[in-house]
Amino acid sequence: MRAMLKGIAASDGVACGRVYRFVEPDLRVKRRSITNLDYELNRFHQALEAAVSEVETIKTRATKNLGADSAQVFSAHIEMLQDPEFIGAIETQIKTEHINAEVALAGVAATYETKLKALTSTYMQERVSDLHDVTKRLTAHLLGVRLPDLALLKEPVVVVTHDLIPSDTVSVDAKYILGFVTDLGGRTSHSSILARSLNIPAVVGTQSATTELQEGATVIVNGSRGTVISEPTKPELAMAKQAMQDRTANMKRLATLRHHTTTSQDGMGVVLAANVGTVNDLPNILQNGAEAIGLMRTEFLYMDSDQLPTEDEQFVAYRQVVQSLAPRPVVIRTLDIGGDKPLPYLKQKPEANPFLGARAIRQSLAHQNIFRSQLRALLRASAFGNLRIMFPMIATLDELRQAKAIYDDERTKLTAAKVPMGKVKVGMMVEVPAAAMLADRFAQEVDFMSIGTNDLIGYTMAADRTNQDVGYLYQPYHPAILRLVDRIITAGHAAGIPVAMCGEMAGDPIAVPLLLGMGLDEFSMGAGSILKTRQLISQLNAKELQSLVETVLNSASTSQEVVTMVQAAVPDVLNQTD
Amino acid sequence: MRAMLKGIAASDGVACGRVYRFVEPDLRVKRRSITNLDYELNRFHQALEAAVSEVETIKTRATKNLGADSAQVFSAHIEMLQDPEFIGAIETQIKTEHINAEVALAGVAATYETKLKALTSTYMQERVSDLHDVTKRLTAHLLGVRLPDLALLKEPVVVVTHDLIPSDTVSVDAKYILGFVTDLGGRTSHSSILARSLNIPAVVGTQSATTELQEGATVIVNGSRGTVISEPTKPELAMAKQAMQDRTANMKRLATLRHHTTTSQDGMGVVLAANVGTVNDLPNILQNGAEAIGLMRTEFLYMDSDQLPTEDEQFVAYRQVVQSLAPRPVVIRTLDIGGDKPLPYLKQKPEANPFLGARAIRQSLAHQNIFRSQLRALLRASAFGNLRIMFPMIATLDELRQAKAIYDDERTKLTAAKVPMGKVKVGMMVEVPAAAMLADRFAQEVDFMSIGTNDLIGYTMAADRTNQDVGYLYQPYHPAILRLVDRIITAGHAAGIPVAMCGEMAGDPIAVPLLLGMGLDEFSMGAGSILKTRQLISQLNAKELQSLVETVLNSASTSQEVVTMVQAAVPDVLNQTD
Repeated sequence: MRAMLKGIAASDGVACGRVYRFVEPDLRVKRRSITNLDYELNRFHQALEAAVSEVETIKTRATKNLGADSAQVFSAHIEMLQDPEFIGAIETQIKTEHINAEVALAGVAATYETKLKALTSTYMQERVSDLHDVTKRLTAHLLGVRLPDLALLKEPVVVVTHDLIPSDTVSVDAKYILGFVTDLGGRTSHSSILARSLNIPAVVGTQSATTELQEGATVIVNGSRGTVISEPTKPELAMAKQAMQDRTANMKRLATLRHHTTTSQDGMGVVLAANVGTVNDLPNILQNGAEAIGLMRTEFLYMDSDQLPTEDEQFVAYRQVVQSLAPRPVVIRTLDIGGDKPLPYLKQKPEANPFLGARAIRQSLAHQNIFRSQLRALLRASAFGNLRIMFPMIATLDELRQAKAIYDDERTKLTAAKVPMGKVKVGMMVEVPAAAMLADRFAQEVDFMSIGTNDLIGYTMAADRTNQDVGYLYQPYHPAILRLVDRIITAGHAAGIPVAMCGEMAGDPIAVPLLLGMGLDEFSMGAGSILKTRQLISQLNAKELQSLVETVLNSASTSQEVVTMVQAAVPDVLNQTD
Repeated sequence: MRAMLKGIAASDGVACGRVYRFVEPDLRVKRRSITNLDYELNRFHQALEAAVSEVETIKTRATKNLGADSAQVFSAHIEMLQDPEFIGAIETQIKTEHINAEVALAGVAATYETKLKALTSTYMQERVSDLHDVTKRLTAHLLGVRLPDLALLKEPVVVVTHDLIPSDTVSVDAKYILGFVTDLGGRTSHSSILARSLNIPAVVGTQSATTELQEGATVIVNGSRGTVISEPTKPELAMAKQAMQDRTANMKRLATLRHHTTTSQDGMGVVLAANVGTVNDLPNILQNGAEAIGLMRTEFLYMDSDQLPTEDEQFVAYRQVVQSLAPRPVVIRTLDIGGDKPLPYLKQKPEANPFLGARAIRQSLAHQNIFRSQLRALLRASAFGNLRIMFPMIATLDELRQAKAIYDDERTKLTAAKVPMGKVKVGMMVEVPAAAMLADRFAQEVDFMSIGTNDLIGYTMAADRTNQDVGYLYQPYHPAILRLVDRIITAGHAAGIPVAMCGEMAGDPIAVPLLLGMGLDEFSMGAGSILKTRQLISQLNAKELQSLVETVLNSASTSQEVVTMVQAAVPDVLNQTD
């Protein structure tokens, strides 16, 4: 049956193929009275073991396919499946209530969920998603049904599903997945991020894909437009196949740009850098032609453990990154915890608005022992390459000066101790609107600035982008955002320092022409966007775009107007990126 | 024993007098086994009745002294003391555990508190404070001790206390309180707000006042500097007494300004308006010489009830305000709920960051039936005076246009129904940084703008001012804030519309010279600050201040630099306001 679905364009490109419904089996459980307790407890333990062994397998595949960092979530699942408190609670339920293990599990999981949900941080909400994953898998084993598994695919298909959770996707072999279509999710949900990192076209948030799309039906997924057509007409099919061929050809062309530098049509050179979450991402970013690391996060060193990383542990990680990239520059950001990323071993009061709370540099200045240890590790690593240090969430010059004084103090001490160090540039993220407004003053006191658009947009629009009700206000093209970005670039250049951008906006095809016209020096983005952006920039004329920038800054009132203006100015170039 | 304490300057002025320690009696409870259950239950009910009757008395006094709105909190206390679920839970504890009522109460209160604290909204935290109040009072009755009561004072004293809770202070007769000193609290805590509204000097957050200051000791409280000296020297005492006399004389002088307009030394006229929370505030604002209402909140109509107010209920309230002020203008802000102000009867998902969530106009546009009913009530009230309507939290032109379209639609319908209406100006709050950055575009589509500094500062600094850990970042004088404010005023004037400010900053003596120099048209503030600000402005030269503004905007890097620059520019004027 022909159907047209509209969803959110989550990952570019067109895919055409047969539907594989990746839809959960019926996992509803019925309450049964248990007379043979030993039998039931034994059944429960067998299911536990089977689930652990299954997750171990998935974890191994995930580590191979996506790196140790992406596989981390499964360690959490295994931990939960082996947690004596969790297991004990279920056993107690079985024994005292004389009920079957499935129902006991459901009851305990519900109690855990209530406790977790009372803590409103995003971090805890992720623990809820772990709990769901584990409960689902364990229930399936108890019911003797198999959860569908994308690793079993033998031919390329379009995967249609309610929503993807991490364990669904890590075992994916990208060559068997033509596209993704989901009922739920937005551009920043797990499904979308995964699809983009694998370069697979995806449409998310269609609401009804799993009810409307039949197993085996032919569909066209347009991940650039956010549409899905089932049972397409012949002309539609022909167009889709042409688009897929063009895309494949373009991917090949893009691969040839891997070792190129980045230059606009009129000869303006810019740096395309990668945002990096952990050391495991290093091979992927070099593969994708990054000229530098524009943002290396350091949270992974702190979050994946139940105690603070030692200075030496940090040193080893930082050295590895700096060395792998040398002589290319690596910008490492000091710890950005707090907000929705609490450290389990660092007590923090619950905050009514964690995004407006004690985050990042605010935490570093409040816990100077942690900050100093990180700075020492960074300084020691600086001997092995081209290191730049960046402070996050700077809002006042007092904070910047305090952070720099601590840095200078540690540097002086290491110098006295004759520890070898390289030259280090010290810069700041501009992500708090106050810093953007005062960029001219800040630029006098740093070696570089990097615009963190994710937070800058959130604060400037007063909208939490993880909140679905106000997600529509998270508008990267809002003229207010563009004016702030332009202000920061102008201020940096007036002070003679380079300005980078390390938010998602830096790799956005509508934003890139504007940023190039404004004179942005470095674009740092997810590795998957680098080659496309290099191609895009090579077709743009930076000088000519200055007048587009002027028009947009002076006369655009809404995001939609900005998009229209950009599309009108460089229509040919943007059409190619579809 | 001589002591010098440093705290937070919470309410201006110097007070000198003897210490009255307003410190809680020992309310610790011991667990006792109960054999005579009936006796214990009876004892509990007697305590409940006594507590209710006491709160009723306090509520009556509070209504008389501070208006029905301030007394509202006691209705909540009485409700809790009469809540069958609360009472039943305690009775059950007594009966099943055979324990005394005090201990049963403590247990039930702890359970309630845990539940409330799991909900991190500010609103729920206030419920925790209600619970504490009620538990304390009930425990005192059960233990047969009296809570100290400021209503028993017979001579003027300096009240020294750990922290003030609402029920401590409503029975206060201002003439017996020379000053307040507290261990806890900040400038926005209840103690501070109360002290300012009563014009009583106060120093809060000293940490140690109740341990260091003895009953009956002579102290000097300097609420402008945030210092407390006990057992002062003779010269210190003489200076303090002089300061008190000067202050009394100045208060008398100020009272003569009540019916004046507001004009700078060089003849620039501005409007001093009042911020108003409920209709009960009306007498007080006229008493304090307000020339207009610059911000009338409407939340009180929605929060104090368990259902939506009808259009007619709203109409009656709006008409009363508009009529009382006529022909003076009244700016009424449409509903600003959401965030930390949830409506009990409007289901809202818990938000990870409510300040960045579905608040104010975002809620009004999502629940148009509520919005339309409010707009109709406002339009009907417009026939009775000089009404202006203001939309809060506007971030995009799309939102403004949508709100205005709904307004136009309702106006058209009422016109068709021949309902009498007056001319109405329609404006917006500028409190989201995006709106400040784009003020020139917004100014083309509204009749006036009003800068909401409380939120604008919070978003621009990315700091929740109710969060103690980042309260230091809530900096009204930060150059970034001043640049945004200047931008908004300039944009408004370029478009030929007036610009007002309705945050606390509008009545701040350091900010006023800058705002006057920038050309702000209307200053709207707490009624208690109006006369002082009128006096201050009459001594300032608006033209001359333009160069101060220029210097500050171009060269100040920090809040402290701004303060220094302002103090250097108008030293004589500011010293007088001490």
